[in-house]
Amino acid sequence: MSENYRQMWTELGLDLKAHDALLGVLSEAYQNIFMAQDNRPEAMSYFDFVMSEVHGLRIKELLDEKAAGRKIIGSYCVFVPEEIALAANATLIGLCTGADFATEEVEKYLPRNTCALIKSAFGFKLGRVCPYLETTDMVVGENTCDGKKKAYESFKDIINNLYVMDLPQVKSANGKALLKAEYVRFKEAAEQLTGVQVTAESLQAAIKLVNAKRAAMLRLYQLRAADPAPISGLDALLANQVFFYDNPERFTASVNKICDELEQRIKDNTGAFPAKMPRILVSGCPQAMPNWKLPAIIETSGAVIVGEESCVGERGVRNLVDESGTSVDEMLDAIVERYFKVDCAIFTPNCDRLQHIEQMAKAYNADGVIHYGLQFCTPYLMESMPVQKALEQKNIPCLRIETDYSMEDMGQLKTRVEAFIEQLK
Amino acid sequence: MSENYRQMWTELGLDLKAHDALLGVLSEAYQNIFMAQDNRPEAMSYFDFVMSEVHGLRIKELLDEKAAGRKIIGSYCVFVPEEIALAANATLIGLCTGADFATEEVEKYLPRNTCALIKSAFGFKLGRVCPYLETTDMVVGENTCDGKKKAYESFKDIINNLYVMDLPQVKSANGKALLKAEYVRFKEAAEQLTGVQVTAESLQAAIKLVNAKRAAMLRLYQLRAADPAPISGLDALLANQVFFYDNPERFTASVNKICDELEQRIKDNTGAFPAKMPRILVSGCPQAMPNWKLPAIIETSGAVIVGEESCVGERGVRNLVDESGTSVDEMLDAIVERYFKVDCAIFTPNCDRLQHIEQMAKAYNADGVIHYGLQFCTPYLMESMPVQKALEQKNIPCLRIETDYSMEDMGQLKTRVEAFIEQLK
Ligand code: SF4
Ligand code: SF4
Ligand code: SF4
Ligand code: SF4
Repeated sequence: MSENYRQMWTELGLDLKAHDALLGVLSEAYQNIFMAQDNRPEAMSYFDFVMSEVHGLRIKELLDEKAAGRKIIGSYCVFVPEEIALAANATLIGLCTGADFATEEVEKYLPRNTCALIKSAFGFKLGRVCPYLETTDMVVGENTCDGKKKAYESFKDIINNLYVMDLPQVKSANGKALLKAEYVRFKEAAEQLTGVQVTAESLQAAIKLVNAKRAAMLRLYQLRAADPAPISGLDALLANQVFFYDNPERFTASVNKICDELEQRIKDNTGAFPAKMPRILVSGCPQAMPNWKLPAIIETSGAVIVGEESCVGERGVRNLVDESGTSVDEMLDAIVERYFKVDCAIFTPNCDRLQHIEQMAKAYNADGVIHYGLQFCTPYLMESMPVQKALEQKNIPCLRIETDYSMEDMGQLKTRVEAFIEQLK
Repeated sequence: MSENYRQMWTELGLDLKAHDALLGVLSEAYQNIFMAQDNRPEAMSYFDFVMSEVHGLRIKELLDEKAAGRKIIGSYCVFVPEEIALAANATLIGLCTGADFATEEVEKYLPRNTCALIKSAFGFKLGRVCPYLETTDMVVGENTCDGKKKAYESFKDIINNLYVMDLPQVKSANGKALLKAEYVRFKEAAEQLTGVQVTAESLQAAIKLVNAKRAAMLRLYQLRAADPAPISGLDALLANQVFFYDNPERFTASVNKICDELEQRIKDNTGAFPAKMPRILVSGCPQAMPNWKLPAIIETSGAVIVGEESCVGERGVRNLVDESGTSVDEMLDAIVERYFKVDCAIFTPNCDRLQHIEQMAKAYNADGVIHYGLQFCTPYLMESMPVQKALEQKNIPCLRIETDYSMEDMGQLKTRVEAFIEQLK
């Protein structure tokens, strides 16, 4: 990344020294994990470029948008609807929470037994190393798991633009009504922030824009059903992660370009890995940038990842918004309809998720499922137990992993993953 | 307890050997912790009797009620309204979750990192040692913390009469409407169970009965403001625990009898402990029967507990239901009004709780607060951090304890508690 950005980072209030350290680690990890892969699709070069400019060019673009009067909204959950933000002339950025930072400071606000994702959100703020967070005009929290719900109460002491969205816990009529009410309230808050009213035109355009982005990802997912898998799980995960902060049009075009190449690869019978390798579906907690630990272990242990049942993956992307609405209210209903289907483990019961795991395992010809649970994530860790039982009853092997962002358990994880993969052969 | 009950326990399906072991431990702990205290109020003999018959006489009473056509409803949370159960001709029992049992079996259903209270609920069922649970015709779960919410999904595999109540997470108009809707649904479920319709008469009588029970406890709490404290925190906690399963009329009368005696003690300047001892308010997670670990440590370390800011304590008892309603619907509204004020940490934000802690510390002349958090209880552990900060800003010393039901940390806890008490002198 060019030195030109130091001025920009300083103006954003970053701690330059800590930020340099973070970028150093990030760039090294990227080299070791991504650039070391063989047989990558050529079109992944777009993502290599994005990553090389992750705190540079994209931040500059966002600051240019701001200079032109647009607002930037940050979020930590796929329940915050990008369509509404876009329609109100704001850009929505999914904030990264995939690395430990400023742990000592963080533990002044959060109990030690807090999931790494939440600690990371605090760490990036307290350590002043995330230019995205510092670019936001509003950050949306949500009442999802107990961890996030309660952490936002303290987060507002260290961040001055936090907005909290309530969410239901049950897929009932009452729950859907709450989601609708909260989306209407969010629309009003976004309008207030930008000074721009959401219109039927702007909302329809936003719905189409986000649908196109999702459709491109769904296309990518389906291509991974081929054997040999035309793209590695690591590269697919990267696309899933960049999904959250790239310019939507450019992102969609880039993913579609990759898909074109993958289609050609499938015709040519070329893959990222040889054919007949054990195929893994990863299911569970979101793997936020730059959390690449588990997929890196899996794909250096003789298996290929063919799907992500995760919010940074198919759970976050599945289902498009119906585009036939004509009024703002009809479109809001269609948006509610779509998001209410998201099968996050914070819902009870959450039967759809098990079905989706089974469907994905089948559709992508997975030989086994690795359930990825972040330590202290009660919703996913609890749900993983009946999920494992149900999968095993259907003869789908399932390994439950519980981990965090530290590298201390790398050896132990690798041993367990290798043994699991061995059993799939 | 008499041998006559073995037949009853067998018929309830208890594992007699395991049950004998549990009763043995319970009785020994009761002797060592409660009977070893000096200067107990004479009227505590009622509770000694209750405890000596805890799985005997009271179970027999419940079975007699059942034989006469009444139904027994079990619950794990103070959000399940006893008034509605009573009005529908059912008895509500708060189920105990204060001891580890059948841990190995439990960990087939729950992650290791689950709070001890939830594990205990599973352990008592899987180990077949709780006659209360086996007496119930319906058990009510609730969507409170992630732990319980998700655990009930597996609990229904081992218990055949589970009913789950949804609860809000926010004290909004929408939240209150959800609570009302859920209480109406619970009323219908209770009516269906018993075949008895709730009427204005039966509901009013139930409201008065439960109000009287709460009023007696509130009277007891207030008397503890005196110095010397007329009753130990252990004995007061015992009353708080028996509150959940005793016959309501008899319980109310017994507590009022204790209060009469305490009033006399205060006049006589007699206490359970000498005057001028450091006074502690315990705040946090519920301490379910027979979880007496922390209070036993505190009161053998030179301090007296003068209040419990907990659901097994004042949080669960504070506020009576307005008795002026005349129709079932008006009374239901009054019930909702009362319960919606419960300041459980599952709510966000939960500002009332901090105020209540401060008020209680002042009202009971506490010198310091010990925050009791169960390990892995995200809501209370997270909330304890801003609570501690706020209390210390007001010069109220606060010690945060994180523990479980094991006895392994006894020594370490005692050291920390003693150091804290030393600092209050
Ligand atoms: S896992 Fe749940 S809480 Fe997390 S981003 Fe997805 S929907 Fe939101
Ligand atoms: S990983 Fe689990 S605990 Fe962490 S923020 Fe997501 S849902 Fe909450
Ligand atoms: S602490 Fe909360 S969840 Fe537990 S009993 Fe009290 S109200 Fe219910
Ligand atoms: S102690 Fe905490 S985690 Fe355990 S059941 Fe109660 S609220 Fe849930």
